[in-house]
Amino acid sequence: MTDAEVEARGRDILSRQPFSKSLGVDIVSMGVGRTALRMPIHEGLTQHLGMVHGGVIATLADMALAFTGGPVMGDGAVTQEFKINYLRPGVGDALLARGEVVASGRNQAVVRADVFVIAEGTEKLCASAQGTIMRAAR
Amino acid sequence: MTDAEVEARGRDILSRQPFSKSLGVDIVSMGVGRTALRMPIHEGLTQHLGMVHGGVIATLADMALAFTGGPVMGDGAVTQEFKINYLRPGVGDALLARGEVVASGRNQAVVRADVFVIAEGTEKLCASAQGTIMRAAR
Amino acid sequence: MTDAEVEARGRDILSRQPFSKSLGVDIVSMGVGRTALRMPIHEGLTQHLGMVHGGVIATLADMALAFTGGPVMGDGAVTQEFKINYLRPGVGDALLARGEVVASGRNQAVVRADVFVIAEGTEKLCASAQGTIMRAAR
Amino acid sequence: MTDAEVEARGRDILSRQPFSKSLGVDIVSMGVGRTALRMPIHEGLTQHLGMVHGGVIATLADMALAFTGGPVMGDGAVTQEFKINYLRPGVGDALLARGEVVASGRNQAVVRADVFVIAEGTEKLCASAQGTIMRAAR
Repeated sequence: MTDAEVEARGRDILSRQPFSKSLGVDIVSMGVGRTALRMPIHEGLTQHLGMVHGGVIATLADMALAFTGGPVMGDGAVTQEFKINYLRPGVGDALLARGEVVASGRNQAVVRADVFVIAEGTEKLCASAQGTIMRAAR
Repeated sequence: MTDAEVEARGRDILSRQPFSKSLGVDIVSMGVGRTALRMPIHEGLTQHLGMVHGGVIATLADMALAFTGGPVMGDGAVTQEFKINYLRPGVGDALLARGEVVASGRNQAVVRADVFVIAEGTEKLCASAQGTIMRAAR
Repeated sequence: MTDAEVEARGRDILSRQPFSKSLGVDIVSMGVGRTALRMPIHEGLTQHLGMVHGGVIATLADMALAFTGGPVMGDGAVTQEFKINYLRPGVGDALLARGEVVASGRNQAVVRADVFVIAEGTEKLCASAQGTIMRAAR
Repeated sequence: MTDAEVEARGRDILSRQPFSKSLGVDIVSMGVGRTALRMPIHEGLTQHLGMVHGGVIATLADMALAFTGGPVMGDGAVTQEFKINYLRPGVGDALLARGEVVASGRNQAVVRADVFVIAEGTEKLCASAQGTIMRAAR
């Protein structure tokens, strides 16, 4: 696949994901082995301390992992597992996640993703994740 | 804290979490070092293959970890990091997460949480997580 | 496989692992979906603070994961990934690791393992791990 | 600390780690927030399939994480937790681990480390890790 095909396929998948759409996740750019996703922050995404809920950050990280690793292996990839470290409270205007393939084979891809919080025009690292994307046909 | 105090505090925190409430997360029971949370499944929580979005499952796991580990350390605990393995597609009527403290100290608690999918009255293991909850005042 | 066959196979594999043997790892018991391993502590396994080196604890956890998950899937299983939380310094007479299958399929098993340190006859939890064992024929 | 001070301190710590020394771990270079470690491969480090034991790779990854994250926080840092994905069998002449700080605060540093296997003069990625290093004075 070319970068353009990867992005077109990503946009099609995203358009059929009710949960991601309800969060306002948007594709900034995609290519072979890399993804950038964006999600605006609003009060509905917060927890009791006023920060973005950790589950929202984990969701965006999971999506960046899957959207990055999936195209490397073809249709029907799913997240097998991942790990996330929270580094900074999610307080600001938007979240930006960037995924990058570490290694890939026929049946699995190992991917890293960083989630940044954008506040007053500045990106700050908010969380870092690493995980495995596998072909869905298991 | 007694089990009853832990649960009362958990219900208070949950009532002030806009994101968790929008997901329909409910506390089944809480006590010192243990939590059970429930979330009904509906189409708005799914991804493009019709399963519950992995981010939703991660959110419930994260909440079970934090609601389990937090009360052990007092107010203001947050998830520092966690890892999750997805075991089975989230297809059914509801998700149920159970958290259990593995070990705890003054500043951190290590917790495990399992997420089950309930379909036709049967619980099946859907995902397993392990992570660290830390005091927020860092 | 019966429990006895699982243990016999485990003992055979261990006898052909130069590194594990040099660490003094021994099988306490094995069965379908469970393993207990033991390793005596001595100065050669420590780091600069006098505690067992984290890599030794990770090695024993990794072995407990693989020896537990492998037999569920047949020959040639390897660790695909794992996560470990260190809970207490490894100071004492021996390490004991117990693994237990969380879920397994044809090609992968998700396993948890706890590593205990034995000091003055008492077991104390030293580290907790969770990971994925996969069939080696990839 | 300067890069030179970080490396001098790393060499001093390594010289007092019986286990690391028995593995033949050597410091290639260290600086503020980065480490490169090397370990020759020999039969004594293998498992039953002739590859380097996963525990050895985990040990080198753990060391790269701790030697990278520790100097950022001062004396007495220990690994709190980490996660590792195995990507390729450890077969070759040596292992090389490179660690890099992702984020650091007063009490913890989140670090990534990649372990490469060197065979016939070529480096190939063998495992990727991510973890948390914390101040030891807990």
